[in-house]
Amino acid sequence: MGDYLFPAEPRVRAIARELYEHVRALPIVSPHGHVDPATLADDRPFPDPARLLIVPDHYVTRLLVSQGVTPERLGVAPRDGGPYETDGRAIWRLLAEHWHAFRGTPSRMWLELTFRDVFGLGEVRLGPDTADEVYDAVAARLAEPGFRPRALFDRFGIEVLATTESPLDPLAHHDRLAADGWGRKVITTFRPDDVVDMDRPDWADNVRRLGELTGEDTEGFDGYLAALRARRAYFKARGATATDHGHPTARTAELAHEEAARLFKRRLAGPVPAADAEAFRAHMLVEFARMSLDDGLVMQLHPGPYRDHDAWLHARFGKDVGGDIPTATEYTRALKPLLDRFGHEPGFRLVVFTLDESTFTRELAPLAGVYPALYLGAPWWFLDSPEGLRRFRETVTETAGFYNTAGFVDDTRAFCSIPVRHQVARRIDAAFLARLVAEDRLPLDEAAETAADLAYHLAKRVYNL
Amino acid sequence: MGDYLFPAEPRVRAIARELYEHVRALPIVSPHGHVDPATLADDRPFPDPARLLIVPDHYVTRLLVSQGVTPERLGVAPRDGGPYETDGRAIWRLLAEHWHAFRGTPSRMWLELTFRDVFGLGEVRLGPDTADEVYDAVAARLAEPGFRPRALFDRFGIEVLATTESPLDPLAHHDRLAADGWGRKVITTFRPDDVVDMDRPDWADNVRRLGELTGEDTEGFDGYLAALRARRAYFKARGATATDHGHPTARTAELAHEEAARLFKRRLAGPVPAADAEAFRAHMLVEFARMSLDDGLVMQLHPGPYRDHDAWLHARFGKDVGGDIPTATEYTRALKPLLDRFGHEPGFRLVVFTLDESTFTRELAPLAGVYPALYLGAPWWFLDSPEGLRRFRETVTETAGFYNTAGFVDDTRAFCSIPVRHQVARRIDAAFLARLVAEDRLPLDEAAETAADLAYHLAKRVYNL
Amino acid sequence: MGDYLFPAEPRVRAIARELYEHVRALPIVSPHGHVDPATLADDRPFPDPARLLIVPDHYVTRLLVSQGVTPERLGVAPRDGGPYETDGRAIWRLLAEHWHAFRGTPSRMWLELTFRDVFGLGEVRLGPDTADEVYDAVAARLAEPGFRPRALFDRFGIEVLATTESPLDPLAHHDRLAADGWGRKVITTFRPDDVVDMDRPDWADNVRRLGELTGEDTEGFDGYLAALRARRAYFKARGATATDHGHPTARTAELAHEEAARLFKRRLAGPVPAADAEAFRAHMLVEFARMSLDDGLVMQLHPGPYRDHDAWLHARFGKDVGGDIPTATEYTRALKPLLDRFGHEPGFRLVVFTLDESTFTRELAPLAGVYPALYLGAPWWFLDSPEGLRRFRETVTETAGFYNTAGFVDDTRAFCSIPVRHQVARRIDAAFLARLVAEDRLPLDEAAETAADLAYHLAKRVYNL
Repeated sequence: MGDYLFPAEPRVRAIARELYEHVRALPIVSPHGHVDPATLADDRPFPDPARLLIVPDHYVTRLLVSQGVTPERLGVAPRDGGPYETDGRAIWRLLAEHWHAFRGTPSRMWLELTFRDVFGLGEVRLGPDTADEVYDAVAARLAEPGFRPRALFDRFGIEVLATTESPLDPLAHHDRLAADGWGRKVITTFRPDDVVDMDRPDWADNVRRLGELTGEDTEGFDGYLAALRARRAYFKARGATATDHGHPTARTAELAHEEAARLFKRRLAGPVPAADAEAFRAHMLVEFARMSLDDGLVMQLHPGPYRDHDAWLHARFGKDVGGDIPTATEYTRALKPLLDRFGHEPGFRLVVFTLDESTFTRELAPLAGVYPALYLGAPWWFLDSPEGLRRFRETVTETAGFYNTAGFVDDTRAFCSIPVRHQVARRIDAAFLARLVAEDRLPLDEAAETAADLAYHLAKRVYNL
Repeated sequence: MGDYLFPAEPRVRAIARELYEHVRALPIVSPHGHVDPATLADDRPFPDPARLLIVPDHYVTRLLVSQGVTPERLGVAPRDGGPYETDGRAIWRLLAEHWHAFRGTPSRMWLELTFRDVFGLGEVRLGPDTADEVYDAVAARLAEPGFRPRALFDRFGIEVLATTESPLDPLAHHDRLAADGWGRKVITTFRPDDVVDMDRPDWADNVRRLGELTGEDTEGFDGYLAALRARRAYFKARGATATDHGHPTARTAELAHEEAARLFKRRLAGPVPAADAEAFRAHMLVEFARMSLDDGLVMQLHPGPYRDHDAWLHARFGKDVGGDIPTATEYTRALKPLLDRFGHEPGFRLVVFTLDESTFTRELAPLAGVYPALYLGAPWWFLDSPEGLRRFRETVTETAGFYNTAGFVDDTRAFCSIPVRHQVARRIDAAFLARLVAEDRLPLDEAAETAADLAYHLAKRVYNL
Repeated sequence: MGDYLFPAEPRVRAIARELYEHVRALPIVSPHGHVDPATLADDRPFPDPARLLIVPDHYVTRLLVSQGVTPERLGVAPRDGGPYETDGRAIWRLLAEHWHAFRGTPSRMWLELTFRDVFGLGEVRLGPDTADEVYDAVAARLAEPGFRPRALFDRFGIEVLATTESPLDPLAHHDRLAADGWGRKVITTFRPDDVVDMDRPDWADNVRRLGELTGEDTEGFDGYLAALRARRAYFKARGATATDHGHPTARTAELAHEEAARLFKRRLAGPVPAADAEAFRAHMLVEFARMSLDDGLVMQLHPGPYRDHDAWLHARFGKDVGGDIPTATEYTRALKPLLDRFGHEPGFRLVVFTLDESTFTRELAPLAGVYPALYLGAPWWFLDSPEGLRRFRETVTETAGFYNTAGFVDDTRAFCSIPVRHQVARRIDAAFLARLVAEDRLPLDEAAETAADLAYHLAKRVYNL
C-alpha cells in the first residue's frame, strides 16, 4: 500500500513517490470543516465504531440506502421518535454485508486507510466474515486514552482545524477550547446561511434571535447588517479567519440599499416569492464581501446543491442525511456583480467551490486566472475523490496555474478521516505533478516546491492561518 | 489483437488481461436492443454484406454522409421512391474508399472485430484495394448455414435478447419464436412513445388503434390507461421484463388526474402547444412508474436526443437515418417528482441513460447513489465507445459505486455487432478495474468478481432476466 | 526535452516519437490568427524582449494580474494616458519574479520553447536569478538580422499565415506585402463583427464608413448586404479564403428579409434591445453562409466569450487585455437554422470552435459527424493547451472521426509562439495516435498518415490554401 494511488508506470510512480515523500509529514491545516467542536472541547472517548464511522457519515449511509438498507437499521434516528438500531455491532455488520457496494468509492478508501493508519489494523479486509474482528479491534483502540479526540488531533499532525458555526451559535465550545489553550488550534468559521436564506421557514425567528444576541435592532435592515458585523467580530475574536456561504446558486447582485431594506421588511412580515429570496441572497453576498474588506475575513462560497432533494429521507430523518443533489451552476454571469465591485480589491479574497466540473475549464479557471481576489477551492463533496482531484488539476491548472487555487480543504464532519483525506489529496497531487515531470513539463525541484505549497503553504496563506 | 484496448503499461495490461479472461466467455444478456425480431423468427440467410453491415447501420451511413456521400449511393431508399444503389458491392466499395474517415471510431472497431471474430477473416485490412476481397469473403460466409441468424445467436453465446416494440405491435414474430421454443431467448420490450408523445402527428390515430387492439375506450383518459395496462400484460406474457421511454427531456411530473384527462381530450381534438405535450409526457412517466409497481416491469428512460435534427436527411429518407443530435439534459429537478413518489419503493426500478456526460458526476451518480430505485444505464449511442465507457466508470464509480449501475446494454440494431460490442465493454471495464488494482485501490479477487457482475450478473439481476 | 509532452510509458513514447518525427518538419499553415500584418509588412526589428513577449500577450499579463501585478507595471498603457512602465527589463523581471504562477500552464511552455527553439538559449531556466541573463540573450538575438519578422517567418517554415481584419480595414499592409511578393504567404480574413454586432456603440458609424468605402447605400439593408459582398470580394482579392465571426452565442436564424431590414433601420436610428441585436447577429450568420456559397470563402464561427467581463480591466485598459470569460454555449438548436439551409450544400464549409468542452461529445461531434458542411475547429484559447488538445481528440474522434476536424489553428497574436504552438499540437496528436496504436486500435501506417493530415493537410484542404 506504500504506492497507493500512484500511477502504475514505473518512472512516473518513482517520481510520484519522491514528491509525496516530500510532503507526507507536513502538518495539516484544515481551514474548512464540519467537525463538531464539542468533540474536542469535551475530549471524551469516542462511542463505538459504528457510531463513530458509519452513523454520522452520510457518504456511507447514502450508499447503503441506495442498496435498499433503511436508515433506521443504520442507527439514524427518525424524526418521529420511532425505533432505530442502537447496537453498534449490528450496524457494523450491515456495512460489512454491503461492502462490495463501496468498491471504487472514496468512502471505502477512507475507511480502509482509517483502519490501517489510524487504528493500526494492518491489512485486514472488511467483509461479512471479518466484520466482528474489525469491529472489536477498532472498539478496543477507542477505549485507549491515545484515541481520545485531542490525542488523535495531535497524532494526526493537525496544526489548525476550522469548524463551521451559525452566527447564532454562542461558540461556547470554542471558549472552552481556548481556556484549555486550544484556541489557536480549533477555530470557528462564520456561516450565516440561516439568517440570510429567506427560503428557510425559521428565517424570521433566526433574525430576531440575532437581534437579541447582539442588542441590535434587527427589525430593520441596517440593524441587521450591524448585527452581522458584530457577530463577525465575535467570531473573529474566537479565531475565525473566514466566512462560508452555502447557496443554491452562485448569483451575486447589488440591489439599491432601499430595495434590499424593503425586501428584508417584506420577509419579516411573511413568506416571499423564491425570486425575492434569491435576490436577497445574491445581494447579501455583495454585502458580506464589503464586510470582508473591512474585517479581513476570507469569503468562501459553496453553491450548487439542491438541498433535501430526497423528500422521503428528509421527511423521515431531517437534513444532512445524504439526500442533497448537485445542479448545474453558472459562474461567469453570476459572480460578475461581486467581482465588478471587489475583484481587484487588494486584501479581499473569495474562495469558490463547485459541484459542477463542466465549469472548470469554461468559467472558473478563466475567472481565477485574471481576478486577483478569486481563488478556486479544492474539489468538494462528491468531487473530493481520487478521480475528482485529478480532474481538478487537469482542467484548472493550464488556465489558472496552481497559485490561484486555495490548497486542499477536507470539508468533513468525519474527524478520523481528516488525515487520510489529506493523504489522498497529497498523493493525487504528487501523481499529477509526477506526470508533468515525466513529460518534461516541470522540473523536479519546482514540482516538489509546488507539492508542498498545495499540501500546506497555500491554504495557510490564502486563509491567513 | 489479443490485447486490444488494454492499456499499454505492462503491469496494468497483465492485470486487465487476467480480468478479461475471467469474463470473456460469459454468456451475453442483451436486455435492450433494436434487432428486428423478424430476422430471428424467419431465420433466413442474411442478404449481401452491404445490406447486412452498412445500409441499416446509421452509425456507419452518417459518417459517410458527413464526408459528402449521399444516402442513395449507400443503398438507403428515398421516401419519394426515387432511385438508389442496389448493388451491394458498389456500396461496399464506397465504404472502403472512405475507410480513413472511420479511424478512431467504434464503428470501425466493431466492423473490424466482426470481420475477424464473426466472419473469421483474419487480420485483413479493409481499404480500396481489399474491398472486393473482404466483400467476397463475407458474402461466402453468409451463404453458409452456420451464418443464419439463429445459428449466429447461439454461436454468439446470447442467453437472452430483448427487442423493442410499440404497444400497437401484435408481436407476431415473438409468437412464432415462442412456437419454435425461442420464447425465453428472444423477448420484447414495451416502448409506448408513439401512443404517448403528443408531438407526433399520428398520435391520435395511434391512440385509436390502441383502443381497437384492446377493446378499451381510448376516447377517454381512463380507458387509455386501461389499454396501456392491457398491452403491458400482453407484452409481459411474451417475455417482456421492461419498458422503454425515449423522451426529449427527463422531465417527470404528476398532474392532477383531471388535468391529465383534460389534456388527453384536448389533443384528441387537435394539436396542442409543445408545453402541453411535454407536460403529458412528464405525467405519463409517473403513470408508467405506477404501472411498473403493479406489474414489475423495469422502467427505462432514454432522454436527450433532438430527433430528426437533420431536416435534409429527414425530408428525403425518413426517421432513424443518423440525423438525431443530443441536447443538454437536466436530471436533478426533472426526475424529482417521480423519485418523490417511487424512489424508495421496494421492487420498483428505473434505469436512466444519458447522452450528456456532464451530468454523470453532477447529477446522475449522486442520484443513483442514494435512491434505491434508480440505476444508471450503460453509456449509450455516441457514448457506447471505448473512451465513453471509460469515462462512464471514471465519473460514476466514485459516487455511485458499481452496484447502482445496470450492466452493459448494447442498444443496437446491428445484430452481428452484438458480441463485439459486449467484448469492447468487457475489455474497457477490465482495463478500468485493472487500474484500480494496479493503484492498490481494489484487490484482484474483488476486481474479478466485479468484472463478472458488470459483464453479466448485474444486467440479469436488474432486468429480472 | 526531445520527448517533451510524450506519455511516459516507454512503448507508447516510442510510437509517439516515431509519429512526431513523421510530422515535425512539415510546413506550417496558419489559417486563423491575429498577428499584426504591419509586423511583416514593415519587417522592422522587434522591440525589446518584454514588448515582444509579455506586453501584448494577454495570456501572460492576465495571469500576472491574477497574482496582483497591475497592468501598468507590465507596460500596458492605461486608456486615460496615465503612466506605465516603459523599461522592458523591469517588466521582464516582474515576469521572472512570478514565474512560479505559470507552472503547468501553456504560456510557460510556449515561452520556454520560444527561448530554446526560436532564440537558441539552451536549457536555461527563467527565474528571479536568471531574469537579466535571459533578457540580455533574447535582446541580443533580436538585434540580429536573422531575427527580423520575415526571416523568422521563413525559418519557422510558415507556408501561409492568415491575419484577421475588419471590413473597414483598407488592407494597406497586405498590399505592401503583395508588392514585395509576400501576397500568397500572408493573407487576410474577413471578420465583419464590428459592422454586424448592434450591441457595439460604434455600429452605426461603422456601417456608414462601410458605405463610404464601397459606394453602396448602407442606409438600407440591401445596400448593406451589397457593401459586405463588395468587401468580401476585396478581401478575396487580397488572398482571403475565409471569414470569421466572433459571437456571444452560436445562434443562427433566418428572419424574413423585411424583418431583418426593419431591424437594420431601427438600429441606425438608435440603440435596440439586446434581443434584437442577438436576432440580427443570428440572421447575419445565415446571410454570410449564403454569401460563402457564392464566393467560396470558408466560414468560421467562434462563439462563447463574455467580452470585457473584467470591468476594472476594461475601464482602465480597453479591450483584449485578458478580461474575457467563456460562457456555456448551446449548438444543437442554435446551428439548426443555418444547417437546415446549407448543411448539405456542396462547397459550403463552416468551421465551428468552442470554449465549452461539455459540448464536444454531446453536440459538436454528433453534428460534425453527419453534416457535410460542418468541421470542428481546433481547441481554442484557454483550450489550446496539452490537456485541452488531448481532451479534444478523446471526446471528438469516436463520434466525428479525424476527418471532420479542420486541422490545427494557432489563433495567436504572439508571432514568435506560432512554431511552438504547432509543435505542441503535433506532439499531443502524436501522443493520442500513439495510444491508439499501442492499444491495437489503429495500425502504425494509418496513424502516421493521420498525424500528417492533422498537422498540415487537413487545414490546407478545409481552408482552400
